[in-house]
Amino acid sequence: MKSRPSILVTNDDGITAPGILALVDVMREIGEVVVLAPDSPQSAMGHAITTSVPIRMEKVDLFKGIEAYQCTGTPVDCVKLAIDKVLDKLPDLCVSGINHGSNSSINIIYSGTMSAALEAAIIGINAVGFSLLDYKYDADFTAAKTYVKEVALNVLDSGLPKGTLLNVNVPALDQKHIKGMKICRQAEARWEENFDERVDPRGKKYYWLAGRFMSTDQGEDTDEWALQNGFVSVVPVQYDLTARHAIGFLTNSWKL
Amino acid sequence: MKSRPSILVTNDDGITAPGILALVDVMREIGEVVVLAPDSPQSAMGHAITTSVPIRMEKVDLFKGIEAYQCTGTPVDCVKLAIDKVLDKLPDLCVSGINHGSNSSINIIYSGTMSAALEAAIIGINAVGFSLLDYKYDADFTAAKTYVKEVALNVLDSGLPKGTLLNVNVPALDQKHIKGMKICRQAEARWEENFDERVDPRGKKYYWLAGRFMSTDQGEDTDEWALQNGFVSVVPVQYDLTARHAIGFLTNSWKL
Repeated sequence: MKSRPSILVTNDDGITAPGILALVDVMREIGEVVVLAPDSPQSAMGHAITTSVPIRMEKVDLFKGIEAYQCTGTPVDCVKLAIDKVLDKLPDLCVSGINHGSNSSINIIYSGTMSAALEAAIIGINAVGFSLLDYKYDADFTAAKTYVKEVALNVLDSGLPKGTLLNVNVPALDQKHIKGMKICRQAEARWEENFDERVDPRGKKYYWLAGRFMSTDQGEDTDEWALQNGFVSVVPVQYDLTARHAIGFLTNSWKL
Repeated sequence: MKSRPSILVTNDDGITAPGILALVDVMREIGEVVVLAPDSPQSAMGHAITTSVPIRMEKVDLFKGIEAYQCTGTPVDCVKLAIDKVLDKLPDLCVSGINHGSNSSINIIYSGTMSAALEAAIIGINAVGFSLLDYKYDADFTAAKTYVKEVALNVLDSGLPKGTLLNVNVPALDQKHIKGMKICRQAEARWEENFDERVDPRGKKYYWLAGRFMSTDQGEDTDEWALQNGFVSVVPVQYDLTARHAIGFLTNSWKL
């Protein structure tokens, strides 16, 4: 009998977030799970790593019968620490999430959830980041869990092309209103800069990052289109950032 | 007479780092410069943004005759804040660095220097991140400045393809030993996980992130090859992370 797959679970909302509990609930059905997640929220940490202060880690008993740890590091630190100090060998799968809120389109760049998955992929592990388009603490992960399981089983079954991982986003809809999954590209979009300028009680200015998501991408092959039309979006992602189409342009126009 | 180009300068080593002074020295020769940089070192911050605490910003007089600000945010915050609160219009160029230490290959993913440039590119500004392969505070930026100027002038002259920016790394060599610039792809590489485990005076464990850079990429078209062979590496970079070659694989093997 083939042994059950080993699965590393992490997130960026912190180890007490309902989203990671939902993810662990699904993963325990299909494999041997170890959890290592931040001890506090680390949203929007991107691919930050902790180098100027040391990291603390401790074992916790938050997921009945599951080996679990929290640490003071970033989501990327969690993956690195699990590989070096917790696991005996590379896991068969690393899953990150389920994030409370979208990581579609350009959001992937700022996302700690996706950076954890990306780090796992760099190490050579099959990796997926999952997000639900609902920022609320008490978001309903019922429908999301169905797709999380389907994606995880597909990845364990078929693997992923070398150097890639998946960015999976689930619309905030009841199961019966979700039309299925779509393999997509990342939509072109950006956040419009907008800082809220305020004055503190001592008369000094401070700024809150605000901003508005903007996409002018009209394509029907994007994650934004899929999500707006009731599909779960699945974007294959790579960490080789080379813009290969620009190599020729530079070589010609710079006359090196 | 055409007006001089407007140039936004930032970095991740902090506004007092010698690398940003070297960068400002070059940029003031070719354009109208505004500086907005972190008030303390922000290396390895990746694409983190500050959302859970407000940001402070103040004007500083560190670069003779140049409008300059420091803020408590990350490198990405610096770019966003400059666009929203400091500059009247989008600058013609955003440069980040000169970083003390390499941002070649996979290092780009962790780099605050490169994330600042990437953010500028997302906004639609021509952007370049510059790094010198010397971590020392008193690194010699003399040769680097020559190439910084050449790259900046090329970008101002030819522009960059939509959705791209440049990652420029300079070897730690005297000018006479540098063979020129090479347009490259990002080498395949990763950092091997390795945490230094220690025990504090109260008997509790803590971990320092260490690690060793590993590349098995034998290509002669990579940034690592260029740098090891005495060239300045110029990698065109994109922020669309879609692994387009994997879309077909997933569509076929998942039978959606």
